[in-house]
Amino acid sequence: MRLGFIGLGIMGKPMSLNLVKSGYDVTVFDINESAVEELVGSGARGAGSAKEVGEMSDIIFMMLPKGEHVESVVLGESGVIYGANDGAIVVDMSSISPVQSKGIAEALEARGMEMLDAPVSGGEPKAIDGTLAIMVGGKEEVYDKVKPYFDAMGQDITLVGDNGCGTTAKLANQILVNVHIAAMSEALTLASKAGIDIKKMYEAIRGGLAGSAVLDAKVPLILERNFVAGGRIDINAKDLTNVMDTAHSIGVPLPLSSQVLEMYHSLMADGKAADDHGGLIQHYEKLANFEVKGVSQ
Amino acid sequence: MRLGFIGLGIMGKPMSLNLVKSGYDVTVFDINESAVEELVGSGARGAGSAKEVGEMSDIIFMMLPKGEHVESVVLGESGVIYGANDGAIVVDMSSISPVQSKGIAEALEARGMEMLDAPVSGGEPKAIDGTLAIMVGGKEEVYDKVKPYFDAMGQDITLVGDNGCGTTAKLANQILVNVHIAAMSEALTLASKAGIDIKKMYEAIRGGLAGSAVLDAKVPLILERNFVAGGRIDINAKDLTNVMDTAHSIGVPLPLSSQVLEMYHSLMADGKAADDHGGLIQHYEKLANFEVKGVSQ
Repeated sequence: MRLGFIGLGIMGKPMSLNLVKSGYDVTVFDINESAVEELVGSGARGAGSAKEVGEMSDIIFMMLPKGEHVESVVLGESGVIYGANDGAIVVDMSSISPVQSKGIAEALEARGMEMLDAPVSGGEPKAIDGTLAIMVGGKEEVYDKVKPYFDAMGQDITLVGDNGCGTTAKLANQILVNVHIAAMSEALTLASKAGIDIKKMYEAIRGGLAGSAVLDAKVPLILERNFVAGGRIDINAKDLTNVMDTAHSIGVPLPLSSQVLEMYHSLMADGKAADDHGGLIQHYEKLANFEVKGVSQ
Repeated sequence: MRLGFIGLGIMGKPMSLNLVKSGYDVTVFDINESAVEELVGSGARGAGSAKEVGEMSDIIFMMLPKGEHVESVVLGESGVIYGANDGAIVVDMSSISPVQSKGIAEALEARGMEMLDAPVSGGEPKAIDGTLAIMVGGKEEVYDKVKPYFDAMGQDITLVGDNGCGTTAKLANQILVNVHIAAMSEALTLASKAGIDIKKMYEAIRGGLAGSAVLDAKVPLILERNFVAGGRIDINAKDLTNVMDTAHSIGVPLPLSSQVLEMYHSLMADGKAADDHGGLIQHYEKLANFEVKGVSQ
């Protein structure tokens, strides 16, 4: 099976490298030529366009920043759709809107090609380790064909439903992560301004019903005031925008998610777009005119 | 050391029973005489008023529904304060406002008595097992005296700060629990109405940054549409009211917690006060005019 990979950024580079390391024949493309050269140096084949990747591949993976990039790479001029053969499979691992994702799947199907939406969770460290969680939407027989290659990039790989269901699961994941960060910010700001040692409080409550992966990941960073991303505020704002667009298109009001999105916009207006999403607490600090501190530090 | 226990409800009954079972001398009181008789049958001594418990005890524990009950039991006519001796310690294990708690501590101190605020987390099952999490506010030397008796009722016992800090930690705990329930409700409603099998989705995301104790505790119940409390909506609304009162008294706006409180008020108006707080998802189902289902069930 000839593989293609388009989009060699922070995530796409280690993901495609894991395919190469597993011994697969991989043709890569990115508008950043040095990223292509780096992969070619590791044993991949370089291509000059998305269309060329399509011509040289049976399964074309992509990992791109936004829906507009996926649309342009698949359907645009020199797009994959003009190069790929009958029966080719496009696997979009970007986090985009399910509506956009379904539209692309339909356009591909009309040309005799297949698509899976397969966004990931876990960030750069798990992309490097090949231990990403992968949530897949599409036909089961198509999923079965691609599964061995997913195994080279992730673990916890789940087919959650038809086309669009992978991206929808990723949006649900992002609701949980970002609203949990806001919940943590409310709890820590209240407790800290009331004079509690928030490190002791965290130890007291983390094992109970209040516990979360967000609390365990972010409280230690907040105590150090370390807001280096991690998961960037602007990327999470993009995800929450997709959440709200999708929710509204099917008649689901999400009052808390929409408020967290507004908080991110406030932080972006304040020059904090590149901060980690754990830096959301800075919004609450501004609201309360108070800096959260680890008393026992 | 002679112990007292006032308030023998769902929580107070098993908690006081664990003190009796540990071999301590315990005098109990409740306005519900049959609860007193039950404890007396298990080896406790019965009293006719809170004041009488004060007279017969060196450490007086209490577990009452609301702040007004604690205030009345400690400071009201026939209150503990009129019976207890110099140096007596009042340990309030109810979940009340830190402001009220501090006020009661000051009144007791003025009469030569001590106080700890020591709310718990874990609910009836952990009260029965003697494995409650206990968050304590007060002086360290007072805490040290009471610690052996806390050990009979809980584990994960933490002194988090001065008077009021135990109740504040409990409020922070309740922010996390209740906002996490709302986050879960938003994620499940969006995903389910978009056509995903939410059980598969839950399995796909629970091990990542989206994971939480709330998700693990409540998703299985929601899939069964089991909203039997558990943690009642009206009790959690009371806690969130204390959260908001406390937050506003020290200048901390909490936009998400306040919205979840409003959602609980909507559910209470709809006759669901006694439902488990996981039943919050019914509010979202009403908003989206859609019932969340486990597709693979």
